[in-house]
Amino acid sequence: MIPIDDSPIVRDGKSLILAMDHGLEHGPVDFEDVPEKLDPSTVFETATHDAVTAMAVQKGIAEGYYPSYEDDVNLLLKLNGTSNLWMGEPDSAVNCSVDYAAELGADALGFTVYGGSNHEIEMVEEFRDAQEKGREYDLPMVMWSYPRGQGLKNDTKPSTISYATRLALELGADIAKVKYPGSKDAMAHAVKCAGDMKVVMSGGSKTSDYEFLSTVEAVIDAGAKGLAVGRNVWQREDPTRLLDALEKVIYEEETADAALEATE
Amino acid sequence: MIPIDDSPIVRDGKSLILAMDHGLEHGPVDFEDVPEKLDPSTVFETATHDAVTAMAVQKGIAEGYYPSYEDDVNLLLKLNGTSNLWMGEPDSAVNCSVDYAAELGADALGFTVYGGSNHEIEMVEEFRDAQEKGREYDLPMVMWSYPRGQGLKNDTKPSTISYATRLALELGADIAKVKYPGSKDAMAHAVKCAGDMKVVMSGGSKTSDYEFLSTVEAVIDAGAKGLAVGRNVWQREDPTRLLDALEKVIYEEETADAALEATE
Amino acid sequence: MIPIDDSPIVRDGKSLILAMDHGLEHGPVDFEDVPEKLDPSTVFETATHDAVTAMAVQKGIAEGYYPSYEDDVNLLLKLNGTSNLWMGEPDSAVNCSVDYAAELGADALGFTVYGGSNHEIEMVEEFRDAQEKGREYDLPMVMWSYPRGQGLKNDTKPSTISYATRLALELGADIAKVKYPGSKDAMAHAVKCAGDMKVVMSGGSKTSDYEFLSTVEAVIDAGAKGLAVGRNVWQREDPTRLLDALEKVIYEEETADAALEATE
Amino acid sequence: MIPIDDSPIVRDGKSLILAMDHGLEHGPVDFEDVPEKLDPSTVFETATHDAVTAMAVQKGIAEGYYPSYEDDVNLLLKLNGTSNLWMGEPDSAVNCSVDYAAELGADALGFTVYGGSNHEIEMVEEFRDAQEKGREYDLPMVMWSYPRGQGLKNDTKPSTISYATRLALELGADIAKVKYPGSKDAMAHAVKCAGDMKVVMSGGSKTSDYEFLSTVEAVIDAGAKGLAVGRNVWQREDPTRLLDALEKVIYEEETADAALEATE
Amino acid sequence: MIPIDDSPIVRDGKSLILAMDHGLEHGPVDFEDVPEKLDPSTVFETATHDAVTAMAVQKGIAEGYYPSYEDDVNLLLKLNGTSNLWMGEPDSAVNCSVDYAAELGADALGFTVYGGSNHEIEMVEEFRDAQEKGREYDLPMVMWSYPRGQGLKNDTKPSTISYATRLALELGADIAKVKYPGSKDAMAHAVKCAGDMKVVMSGGSKTSDYEFLSTVEAVIDAGAKGLAVGRNVWQREDPTRLLDALEKVIYEEETADAALEATE
Repeated sequence: MIPIDDSPIVRDGKSLILAMDHGLEHGPVDFEDVPEKLDPSTVFETATHDAVTAMAVQKGIAEGYYPSYEDDVNLLLKLNGTSNLWMGEPDSAVNCSVDYAAELGADALGFTVYGGSNHEIEMVEEFRDAQEKGREYDLPMVMWSYPRGQGLKNDTKPSTISYATRLALELGADIAKVKYPGSKDAMAHAVKCAGDMKVVMSGGSKTSDYEFLSTVEAVIDAGAKGLAVGRNVWQREDPTRLLDALEKVIYEEETADAALEATE
Repeated sequence: MIPIDDSPIVRDGKSLILAMDHGLEHGPVDFEDVPEKLDPSTVFETATHDAVTAMAVQKGIAEGYYPSYEDDVNLLLKLNGTSNLWMGEPDSAVNCSVDYAAELGADALGFTVYGGSNHEIEMVEEFRDAQEKGREYDLPMVMWSYPRGQGLKNDTKPSTISYATRLALELGADIAKVKYPGSKDAMAHAVKCAGDMKVVMSGGSKTSDYEFLSTVEAVIDAGAKGLAVGRNVWQREDPTRLLDALEKVIYEEETADAALEATE
Repeated sequence: MIPIDDSPIVRDGKSLILAMDHGLEHGPVDFEDVPEKLDPSTVFETATHDAVTAMAVQKGIAEGYYPSYEDDVNLLLKLNGTSNLWMGEPDSAVNCSVDYAAELGADALGFTVYGGSNHEIEMVEEFRDAQEKGREYDLPMVMWSYPRGQGLKNDTKPSTISYATRLALELGADIAKVKYPGSKDAMAHAVKCAGDMKVVMSGGSKTSDYEFLSTVEAVIDAGAKGLAVGRNVWQREDPTRLLDALEKVIYEEETADAALEATE
Repeated sequence: MIPIDDSPIVRDGKSLILAMDHGLEHGPVDFEDVPEKLDPSTVFETATHDAVTAMAVQKGIAEGYYPSYEDDVNLLLKLNGTSNLWMGEPDSAVNCSVDYAAELGADALGFTVYGGSNHEIEMVEEFRDAQEKGREYDLPMVMWSYPRGQGLKNDTKPSTISYATRLALELGADIAKVKYPGSKDAMAHAVKCAGDMKVVMSGGSKTSDYEFLSTVEAVIDAGAKGLAVGRNVWQREDPTRLLDALEKVIYEEETADAALEATE
Repeated sequence: MIPIDDSPIVRDGKSLILAMDHGLEHGPVDFEDVPEKLDPSTVFETATHDAVTAMAVQKGIAEGYYPSYEDDVNLLLKLNGTSNLWMGEPDSAVNCSVDYAAELGADALGFTVYGGSNHEIEMVEEFRDAQEKGREYDLPMVMWSYPRGQGLKNDTKPSTISYATRLALELGADIAKVKYPGSKDAMAHAVKCAGDMKVVMSGGSKTSDYEFLSTVEAVIDAGAKGLAVGRNVWQREDPTRLLDALEKVIYEEETADAALEATE
């Protein structure tokens, strides 16, 4: 963890990361109901919203589409990822080097670590290389800290999420992206375990506007510093309206109710 | 994906890649009925046809034969490959470095990725190195995107081929070479999943002239940007005639019927 | 082993290392009764005590907190570590490079070797790289020498601890951190096996003041050169008082009784 | 494959390689009846015969004995090899680097690839490194192309040997050393599969003069470009006489009968 | 094998290597009856005897003690080794780099290769790196050539020891250290298999003066060039007397009887 409040991916100490690596991680199935979003330009357009501090994509998407958006969007280059065609013990291929990410204009880096996987050792060593090389470019590092693997039956229970944030802090991440542990108290504990390092919640699969915003409200209340969201934004018909609401909940710390009302 | 329309391997936005790596991948058995084609010169001769934008071979063939054809043929150096003497979980040896490919005069690179294989992680990391090194030489990268392995019972079903093109886009390929998913609609979806990246169909084993050209017609109609073909060309008695017809179907977007008639 | 008596982590030939890598190795559970200690600053404060010659932490903690304490605390950067979410044969990820440790201002390095594990070979080779690179920076190397793995049923029996210290000497450590082998005699033998290399006892889980200090007294009496302690200090309500007592037992070689009395 | 007809290891387009790596591959047992040949000098003496275009040995033998023969013998440094004390799936240790081979004065390199082995992928990648580095020194590369492993019940059947020569061509060897496939026709097919690349027969275990020369005659007749022979030469009482005969069969394309008669 | 007769570790063409790596390989148990020898200085003192041409130790011992003996003892740095806490298929960790060995003042290098182990491939490749790097420093390489592993039931039978010396020659060692194969004849054959490379006998566990010296006499008679000995020297009450006797048997080629008598 280094100071990143002056980084472009942080606004008032918080971050809203719009993620679209689902084409790699889940395959085209996530786009079934919104086929037009298979065109990455549509999501980059959404990412120009003021509430979004960074867009997280894989190398190929960055290469092909970021040149048109580099003035309006901050790039978070996700350095590893894996298809779900493969079904072994959790692991993730490092598919982009830090040098190349920097060349593509990245403002920050992203890296998945599956703590608890039989590949934890290897992933942590790959993370080390990426983190230390990233330091040379002054690029903040966001860890997708997702404990998972043969020893973990429930990957969102409070103690697991608290371990996830602590692991990110100890290993040198600047932001930990973790799943919602089920309650505001549990999230508050996970935030406490992270010391001064920022924690953002991972958006997960699509829910209703109110349900989603309420969770975000709880998370911000618990001390988290924002959100990394994908499907809950770009699977929506009107992503802009939700981003307007998220802007209020995250940066202005309004309630979900107030934010929804204001954006109706 | 970077812009490659100005690359020598692209003609009017499309590509026709003549492939002859079968001696490595399948062994001499593919040449049983056309033993004269064991001499790579014969296929390089065929590749001088205007319709062919690149010839895809392994390092040894390029070393031995490309010097005689470098003025008339564009070289696509296939960087990995494996014999079928070996029968484990799908994997492929990187048998040529990008530096050496460039030294041999390559105009483009080829790389197989078996998404879904237990070796997916390793193959994607090898692809990363090749793709990024290729960028230093401005060499387009064609991914043989072939999901395959223990978790995949059917490697040509529509959702698999769509995942294959998306995976190639996300990982930074410039062209994805995929198998025909069985219908024009399925191919159209696979093309859509690839965003602005080009998709070409893999030719497969030999069929009749009409059947083959009809499939190519459907594929072009579906938005694909060409074809990578081997046996369906060089296993034929008169490859030139088929290439004449393919030229019409691919670049002039004529029907299979019209193309066959014109080349009779 | 090289001469380290002039190193900042040694005082009068001895060391008291305050360790806080439990957040990585054990997870937040070790902080359950002392949640305020989840904030690493609190333990760094404790480490400013004169008795403490070095504070041992992982990279992320050093990055985030050491800049505020570099004038008052000596940094021992622990180079490897693993979560207990993972439960395979003992191994440890090298999560920090020596170059980066030096950049963070480390005064010494720490490295776990699980002799007897199926990963012993690999760990010893990683240790080699770290030790030799550390020599370039003149950084003393502390080995957490913890025999463990499928062949070892009891990892604190005297012969195991004696092997642990000898292994550290043979491999080039400057200090071996080992568990208490159960008696002063056994510790004396372990110290003898280490030749001129320093041995420090690993503190272990929390016990009573008297029990802990008595063990330390025995250990010092046996010729050990100090202590590496974590939970027995920072899990206490008043760590300073215990450190006052430890200072007397370790550096002034007083009895536990005398030390406790003097600090009441 | 690059042009090697001007290389010292080629005479009139052909090669006769005298191999003595049996001490590593088979152990001293191959020398049981000719214990004096345990002294490598004796075989180097034999290799001074005009018929021999190169002597193939491992690094240690080259280091110790080649300095005395560098004016009279061409050195083919065999880069990998394995004892038969080890009995796993076929593999071979790369025991000499190309840089060091060049330093020892090598005129050519040798490398075993066990196509079909579970280690095929790894061996082909090691071959790549050696072949490409060898190109920097202009050193011809001879591949011991020996399909072998769990999937191969019969490693000398015609289709296997044809695959072996093709694999060597595709991977960039300059000469393929293969076993005799049992008939002249089968060898002719294997030669055809190799395109313009040279194929030499591997000598195998000792047979009678006539039997051996007849096979060599058939092989040359089939278009092969020579022989790599060990035991059939140095296990003989009078290697010189056999080399005289081989010279006639290989370079002058005489029959076995004529050659034997002339050298009686 | 390169000429090493001018090396400091050779005296009149022979070597007597005093080894003390038992603390790593066997643990403190070898010192049970001679606890004072746990202090490496005591053995370094013994190594100042004129008969001893080199002392073989691991990195840590060299670092800590060799500086005091560099004028009186030649250092043979053993580059790999493993504890016997670990009990898998024979393997050995490379715990010291050649560069660092040279920096420590090594006069020669030592390396264990377990031919026949499932790790033979890997060990031989590690040996290659060490041997070739050692050549840059002109450091003789002693191979502990110990066939061992799942395929070897008896690791001291004559054919195994003969293979061991040959393997060392082929791979580029300068001296092979092997176990006694049970008879003078067997040793003579093993020596013959090594060509011009030197063979020394490995001392093994402690026996009586006469028994030990008689074996050494036989070994020298068989053409071996010396001895590598540990326990049979430093486990003795009066190592100097035995070294006096060994000096006579090895360098002056006296009988065991005569040597014992002369040193009484």
